[in-house]
Amino acid sequence: MHLLLISNSTMAGEPFLEYSKDEIARFLSGRQNIVFIPYAAVTFSFDDFEAKVNRRFRDFGLSVKSIHRFENQVEAVETADAIVVGGGNTWNLVRHLHQNGLIEPVRRCVKAGTPYVGWSAGANVACPTMQTTNDMPVVDPLGFDTFGLVPFQINPHYTDRQIEGHGGETREERILEYLAANPKSTVVGLREGCMLNVEGGHVRYVGKNNLRLFINGRQPIEIEPDEDFDFLLKF
Amino acid sequence: MHLLLISNSTMAGEPFLEYSKDEIARFLSGRQNIVFIPYAAVTFSFDDFEAKVNRRFRDFGLSVKSIHRFENQVEAVETADAIVVGGGNTWNLVRHLHQNGLIEPVRRCVKAGTPYVGWSAGANVACPTMQTTNDMPVVDPLGFDTFGLVPFQINPHYTDRQIEGHGGETREERILEYLAANPKSTVVGLREGCMLNVEGGHVRYVGKNNLRLFINGRQPIEIEPDEDFDFLLKF
Repeated sequence: MHLLLISNSTMAGEPFLEYSKDEIARFLSGRQNIVFIPYAAVTFSFDDFEAKVNRRFRDFGLSVKSIHRFENQVEAVETADAIVVGGGNTWNLVRHLHQNGLIEPVRRCVKAGTPYVGWSAGANVACPTMQTTNDMPVVDPLGFDTFGLVPFQINPHYTDRQIEGHGGETREERILEYLAANPKSTVVGLREGCMLNVEGGHVRYVGKNNLRLFINGRQPIEIEPDEDFDFLLKF
Repeated sequence: MHLLLISNSTMAGEPFLEYSKDEIARFLSGRQNIVFIPYAAVTFSFDDFEAKVNRRFRDFGLSVKSIHRFENQVEAVETADAIVVGGGNTWNLVRHLHQNGLIEPVRRCVKAGTPYVGWSAGANVACPTMQTTNDMPVVDPLGFDTFGLVPFQINPHYTDRQIEGHGGETREERILEYLAANPKSTVVGLREGCMLNVEGGHVRYVGKNNLRLFINGRQPIEIEPDEDFDFLLKF
């Protein structure tokens, strides 16, 4: 498998897909027929999302075609040279994936070798379920199951911080609730500016901040960028 | 109807149910048989949640019995002098409400006059759906529908602030996504330290901060504490 799972598209104050640009350009280098999945968009159109990605991908010498413009979306997945899944609202993304019957075809093709890039919601859906999303459930997702390309859960935009004086749960508290309800699951807190590159059975970590790993019944574990991340595929 | 819908149980640095204590004590004054719904608890037990509420309610001369200790939970609702729904994880709360067949009985009894107090998740579920929750979907709720005691949606713990340098969506952006997907809905951003007291067709607002109202296709509206809130029941 070839996966590039990115925490967030945009760092505060930076252009769209800036910190990840070298990784994306290298990962997709030479790919012609790149299919883009724009279904995480809610307050803007799928056409607009495709155009935004293409404006940025032009800088990398790449272009995408959005899956919503194919008559046969499953065939679009099956014939793609690469699949790119954008961020936004995970609930809307998963609903459209289910409605269009795309979960199983994407899983099968990526497991058979089609490269997969996802950021934010697009990284979340590479996991077994969407349940470590941060997003508001604006639509019924028609099931929580997602691509299951990796055996662990990603919480994108992971943050240690809390708005000062705010009484709501911290991100860590939310993940600990998830683990209490799903004790066999493992959650990767993927801080902004960080990504995981899976190639075969190896995981390369790109980012300046640690990854924070949550396993039920254990204290959260901080893993530094230069450590070995291959063990993540053993969960 | 008699409703007391509270944004949050605990202000940062204050004891549990501190800012709302006078309202709760007055609202439930003289009620003997108060049934508590503890199902938003995930990382602690329903027994512990009941005990925590009783320790606090003792200060008000009140006590509750948790619904998980009744053999017939529907009968517990039907014979209650008041219903109190605690906060925590909205998904776990709604799952247990559905599993125990409590949505319709609570709706019916509260519409017939049983007083209802809810904070955080307990305020959220007084609305038509749980979809304006901030919580992580740690379990399948078995449906998004909730009590529908008011015609609008509450977003509890509403905040204008964002963690500095964080690239995730603001709360307002999340609510605007909800409205884009559910354009007929109206969302009340209920800031911490604020509550709504519904008595018959009248709404009293208690809190120092404005309420922020979201209607699809309009700019968000700030409503000051001394304005008339009865219009909220017209949506």
